[in-house]
Amino acid sequence: MQQLENDRYLRALLRQPVDVTPVWMMRQAGRYLPEYKATRAEAGDFMSLCKNAELACEVTLQPLRRFDLDAAILFSDILTIPDAMGLGLYFENGEGPRFERPLTSLQDIQKLPIPDPEMELGYVMNAVRTIRKNLKGSVPLIGFSGSPWTLATYMVEGGSSKAFTKIKKMGFSEPAALHLLLDKLADSVTLYLNAQIAAGVQSVMIFDTWGGVLSPRDYQDFSLQYMHKIVAGLTREHDGRKVPVTLFTKNGGQWLEAMAATGCDALGLDWTIDIADAKRRVGDKVALQGNMDPSMLYAEPARIEQEVQHILQGFGSGTGHVFNLGHGIHLDVPPDHAKVFVDAVHRYSKPYHQ
Amino acid sequence: MQQLENDRYLRALLRQPVDVTPVWMMRQAGRYLPEYKATRAEAGDFMSLCKNAELACEVTLQPLRRFDLDAAILFSDILTIPDAMGLGLYFENGEGPRFERPLTSLQDIQKLPIPDPEMELGYVMNAVRTIRKNLKGSVPLIGFSGSPWTLATYMVEGGSSKAFTKIKKMGFSEPAALHLLLDKLADSVTLYLNAQIAAGVQSVMIFDTWGGVLSPRDYQDFSLQYMHKIVAGLTREHDGRKVPVTLFTKNGGQWLEAMAATGCDALGLDWTIDIADAKRRVGDKVALQGNMDPSMLYAEPARIEQEVQHILQGFGSGTGHVFNLGHGIHLDVPPDHAKVFVDAVHRYSKPYHQ
Repeated sequence: MQQLENDRYLRALLRQPVDVTPVWMMRQAGRYLPEYKATRAEAGDFMSLCKNAELACEVTLQPLRRFDLDAAILFSDILTIPDAMGLGLYFENGEGPRFERPLTSLQDIQKLPIPDPEMELGYVMNAVRTIRKNLKGSVPLIGFSGSPWTLATYMVEGGSSKAFTKIKKMGFSEPAALHLLLDKLADSVTLYLNAQIAAGVQSVMIFDTWGGVLSPRDYQDFSLQYMHKIVAGLTREHDGRKVPVTLFTKNGGQWLEAMAATGCDALGLDWTIDIADAKRRVGDKVALQGNMDPSMLYAEPARIEQEVQHILQGFGSGTGHVFNLGHGIHLDVPPDHAKVFVDAVHRYSKPYHQ
Repeated sequence: MQQLENDRYLRALLRQPVDVTPVWMMRQAGRYLPEYKATRAEAGDFMSLCKNAELACEVTLQPLRRFDLDAAILFSDILTIPDAMGLGLYFENGEGPRFERPLTSLQDIQKLPIPDPEMELGYVMNAVRTIRKNLKGSVPLIGFSGSPWTLATYMVEGGSSKAFTKIKKMGFSEPAALHLLLDKLADSVTLYLNAQIAAGVQSVMIFDTWGGVLSPRDYQDFSLQYMHKIVAGLTREHDGRKVPVTLFTKNGGQWLEAMAATGCDALGLDWTIDIADAKRRVGDKVALQGNMDPSMLYAEPARIEQEVQHILQGFGSGTGHVFNLGHGIHLDVPPDHAKVFVDAVHRYSKPYHQ
C-alpha cells in the first residue's frame, strides 16, 4: 500500500476523524483555468485530450498546483462507455456531446457489446496509471463513471436533452428494451470502475446527472436499481485500503434515504438541499459531499467565505463531510475565487473537528 | 354570483367535498391540438394570438370541446408583465422567449415602470372577459402569472437559461439590485392578478418555473418571500365566491412546508415527488395539484390508466386533490392520449369520494 501524504478525503468518506474538512471541486480540471485551455489547444479536440495519457495527467494535476485540494479526479468524460460501445461520441462546438449512431430500437440494444475496459477503454486506464505515478502519493485519485440511466439518456436522445422525450417514450412504451440497455450499462460500468480501481483510483463516484427528471417510482426502476447493482459489484478494498463509493443524483434530494440504502459510502448533494436536513436524514449511514451553488463563485470573496461558513455550520461537528460544489465549476469563474473557496473550507472547518 | 355547472375544481382547491377528482392539464390549449395550430396560423405569431381576445378565447375553449375538463385556463404567456414594462418580448422559432432589451444594471431596474393592468395589459383583461362570456358558466376560468423570480430570470438573462449565470451573479454580488427588481415584480403581479380576478378569473395560479434552481436559503430570499407578498395582497373573494390561489415551484418538492406557510390554498406538484408524501407533509394545510409526468402521455392507454390509478391511490380518500400533469403537456402527444388521461381521472377517482 502506497502511503498518502493527505488522506483526509478518503477518511471523511469513510466517516473517520479528520483535522479539517477536505475539499475538491467537480470539474476542477477545466476551462476556467487558462493552463487547461492551453493544454486543450495542444491536444486538439476534447476526446483527443482524454485519450492522451500525458496530457490528461497534465490537466488533472493543474488545479492541484494552484489550490490546496484534497483530491485529484481523473480527467475523462462520463460518456466513454457508450463511445466504446460503438455509438461514435463527438462534441459540437458549444453544443455539448452528441452521438453519431444513437439507439433507436431493441435490435440496436441487443447488438451492443459490453466493452472490455483494458481494451476499448485502455486509454482511460493508461491515464489513471500515469496520474497515480505523477501524484506521488500526495492526494488520492478519484475515478468515475456516468450512471446507467444518465448514459442511456444520451445514447437514446443522441445528445443532451431538455424533455427526455425519446428515452421516456421507450421507458413507458417499451420498458423491456430500456431495461436491457440499463442492465448492459450496469455491467459495463461495474467492469469499467473495477478496472479503474485496479489501475489505481482510490475512490469512485457515479454521476447520475439526469436521475432527477424521473418520478420517484421511475427513479427507483430506471436509475437507482442499476446503481445499486453496480455498488454491489464493485471492488470495495484494493491495495490494503477501502475504496469508498459516492453516488450523486442531481436533483435527487428527495430520495437520499433510498440512495443511502444501496450500500454506498457517500452521497453527493446538489445545492437545492439543506445539508443539515440531509445529515439528519442519512448522516448515520453515509458521508455527504457538497454542496455550495457553483454560481456562488461569481460573488465577491467575502460572500463566498460567508457561504462556506454557512454550509460548514449546517453540517456541524464531526466527520463525514467532503466539501464540494453542488455541480461542476462554471467556465467563467475567476480562478482566484476558487482559491478563496478552497482556503475558506480549510480555515473555517477547523473548529468542527476539535 | 354566476352559477357554475361544474365547480369541482374550485371546491377541491378549497378542500370541500366533490363527486370525482377534478382534472385539467397545464398548457391544455396548445400545439398538440391541430385546431390550435390552425388558429395560431390565422393569428400570425404567438403574441398576436395572445393579444386578440376572440382568438385567445377560441384556443382557450378548444380543449374543452374535446375533453371533459373541469377548468379552463386563460390563454396567455407568463412574460406579459416584463413585456408591458418595455423589455420587448419576442419569440424566436423554436428557441423560446427572448427580450430585446434585457436588464443589465441597477439603473435599468430603477427605471422600470409598474404596469397598469387595465392599460398596458388591457388585452389580457379583454381576453378574460371574452372567455368568461363564452364559457357560459360551464367550468371556472383560471388566471395566472409568472412568479417574480421566474420573470426576473428571463428579464436579466434575456431569455431561457441553463445555468442562470447573469441573474445569480446579480443576486450574489448586487443583491440590492435584484431585490428591487423582485419587489417591483411582486407589486406588478399583485395588480395584474387582482385585475384578472376583477375581470372574471375564478382562481389564480403563480408559476415559479425556475425557483428550483436555487438553494433553500436563496429560494426563500429570492423567490418565496415575493410570492408570499403577492398572496397577502390578492383579492381572495370576488362576486360572492372565494378565489383560490395555487403556487407552483417546479423542482420545489423539498420546500412544500414553506410554500404552504404563505397562506395559499393549494400547491402545484411536479412529478418528482410522491403525492402521498406531499399529502402527509402539507395535506392538512393546502390542496394539492398534480402530478403525472407529462411524458407518460406517450405511453399506451393501458399504461396511462395504470399511472392515473397509482397517483389517485397515493392521494387516497377525501377531497383536496386537483389532478394535473406535473408540467405542461408536450407538443407531440396524441390528443387521444390526453382524452384517455382525463377520462381515467374521473372514472377511477369515484371510489375515493364516497
